[in-house]
Amino acid sequence: MYTFEYLENYTRSVFVKMGCPPEDAQLATDVFMAAELRGLPSHGMIRIKDYFQLWQAKRINVRPSMKIIHESPSTAVFDGDGAIGMIAASRSMQIAIEKAEKAGTGWVSTRNSNHFGIAGYYAMMALKKDMIGISMTNANPLVAPTFSISRLLGTNPIAVAIPAGEKDPFVADFSTTPIARGKLAVAAKQGKKIPEGYVQDKDGKPSDEPDILKEGGSMLTLGGDYDHGSHKGYCLSAIVDIFSAVLSGANFGPFVPPSVAYLPVLDEKVGEGTGHFFGAMRIDAFRPASEFKAKMDEWITTFKNARPAEGQDQVFIPGEPEKRKEQKIREEGIIVIPAVAKEMKEIAAYLGVEFKEQ
Amino acid sequence: MYTFEYLENYTRSVFVKMGCPPEDAQLATDVFMAAELRGLPSHGMIRIKDYFQLWQAKRINVRPSMKIIHESPSTAVFDGDGAIGMIAASRSMQIAIEKAEKAGTGWVSTRNSNHFGIAGYYAMMALKKDMIGISMTNANPLVAPTFSISRLLGTNPIAVAIPAGEKDPFVADFSTTPIARGKLAVAAKQGKKIPEGYVQDKDGKPSDEPDILKEGGSMLTLGGDYDHGSHKGYCLSAIVDIFSAVLSGANFGPFVPPSVAYLPVLDEKVGEGTGHFFGAMRIDAFRPASEFKAKMDEWITTFKNARPAEGQDQVFIPGEPEKRKEQKIREEGIIVIPAVAKEMKEIAAYLGVEFKEQ
Repeated sequence: MYTFEYLENYTRSVFVKMGCPPEDAQLATDVFMAAELRGLPSHGMIRIKDYFQLWQAKRINVRPSMKIIHESPSTAVFDGDGAIGMIAASRSMQIAIEKAEKAGTGWVSTRNSNHFGIAGYYAMMALKKDMIGISMTNANPLVAPTFSISRLLGTNPIAVAIPAGEKDPFVADFSTTPIARGKLAVAAKQGKKIPEGYVQDKDGKPSDEPDILKEGGSMLTLGGDYDHGSHKGYCLSAIVDIFSAVLSGANFGPFVPPSVAYLPVLDEKVGEGTGHFFGAMRIDAFRPASEFKAKMDEWITTFKNARPAEGQDQVFIPGEPEKRKEQKIREEGIIVIPAVAKEMKEIAAYLGVEFKEQ
Repeated sequence: MYTFEYLENYTRSVFVKMGCPPEDAQLATDVFMAAELRGLPSHGMIRIKDYFQLWQAKRINVRPSMKIIHESPSTAVFDGDGAIGMIAASRSMQIAIEKAEKAGTGWVSTRNSNHFGIAGYYAMMALKKDMIGISMTNANPLVAPTFSISRLLGTNPIAVAIPAGEKDPFVADFSTTPIARGKLAVAAKQGKKIPEGYVQDKDGKPSDEPDILKEGGSMLTLGGDYDHGSHKGYCLSAIVDIFSAVLSGANFGPFVPPSVAYLPVLDEKVGEGTGHFFGAMRIDAFRPASEFKAKMDEWITTFKNARPAEGQDQVFIPGEPEKRKEQKIREEGIIVIPAVAKEMKEIAAYLGVEFKEQ
């Protein structure tokens, strides 16, 4: 068990030693720590090694010259110059917020970036400005469109954060697949089968084998099969891909570069790096913020008062489970599994950073 | 079998006789006809009776004074004054497009409207301006959030239309439930059971009974159950509800007014009428339109070339199946089932419009 501060210091030191300016190191660290706090360790410490190895392979740029390529009063295309995804994404969302301050809304499509961690972090940046925040990204191709066996899409997440008044904000943050990829890895490590509807084998037959991706299988889109609406999950994932990459000039679909160094750089590219898309909508561009926030409290109360199904305690508001985890984790500390702590120690030794396995 | 022109004339005449100005009658008719052409008869002639009865019950306003309530360079809240949904929605999308012309993007949240037909129609209005179009609406509560048995959400559809170059545009138009409600009615009429994952009974137990909504059951969100990501479908549906109703001041969730006259007006309201949300993004606010459209053609080719799963012919691009149906229906004519033709004839007799059952 580690304290928040201990892991925050460690992560920041790692990025500083890689050569990031201190403010960039802090930004990247904030996103890693937000993942741990929100109970999403699949995007936390476990990923430090991936970033370290990408840096060793010179596949991320710790001193990027990022810039706006094209803009209008409410839009911009932003070039991340191969930056760590968190750095390009935070700056992009900041631009969306600045655009929204003047034009009511701001929309930024970002190219030449990398894996950006949890989508929810950037959407939530809008909350303190009384704005709705939106964030999405394309990702390594692991997912097949409906009726296909070709891995053309990533788990392409969407996050939407909406301010409330007395209540906690509404924060939705979800991949456009039935489950996140990390859950397959967990099941595989535990030797467990998985429910049908998550993956298919290389011929497109349903599979309950979490390791099927290693044998030419693919993940399915939200909905699972056509009868249960997988074509809707395919639409969502495709929209994320197009907004993130075709609007910005990043690589789309199967051409998204790997976010791990052990996979080779692809031979073919159709754009620059990984793509993201961000939006900010000023609440008072629609109605007075106080009025909206009072209505959001009413919305939340209405949904919180829904009758639970048999065997269930309660209905959750999007973001509520993560918020509860955050409170618990801040009090109790952060668990890092031994295999990850070992990797962190090796990285620490290489970079000359302090880290103690606990 | 009817020709397109025959049904178009009929529908326009019905709206004119109800008292709509000719241009409004044409607009409403365009949306009805688009549903028939795109192979979505659940939003076509079968709905004429609902609109007629709502008009008889004075629950839709055929001479609305619609207006912008609040605006910024890229946003507006629009009040439909109880108009036919198609009229308020077309005008709202028009405003979004006008805003986008100046500010790069335009976003309109609409209150005091009614059922608006197919969401895709409004999203597609943006295509001829080289813009991406977005459209969504809340709807009568039939759907329960994850872990609940309370019907708090509608089938809340989302449509996104994206221009391409040589290829047909990308047009996604989908409800945030595994299937549209109309499919339950069809199964019930045929005495068929439905797959699990569509509906639950009054206690929240899985059901294969298409008529279960009459016994206190509810529809499930996209994903079906928690293990298959129903909480993601719940997030999507909730986002549609909040953008459509909490931003605009329409009724949200369980307070959305019925879109049929045989259901009573609700006792409680939390806003004005039904809510919608529209967006338009000028492509060249991001990059030159010709460049974008060439990349979209490349995207479409990449996805069209995906390897089909065993037993499947091909992969579809969103909007492609509807486009094919449209070509076929334009050539062959439109089928209206006898029960619907009978209703249309009764309405014709009442209003003094010509209609011949065929």
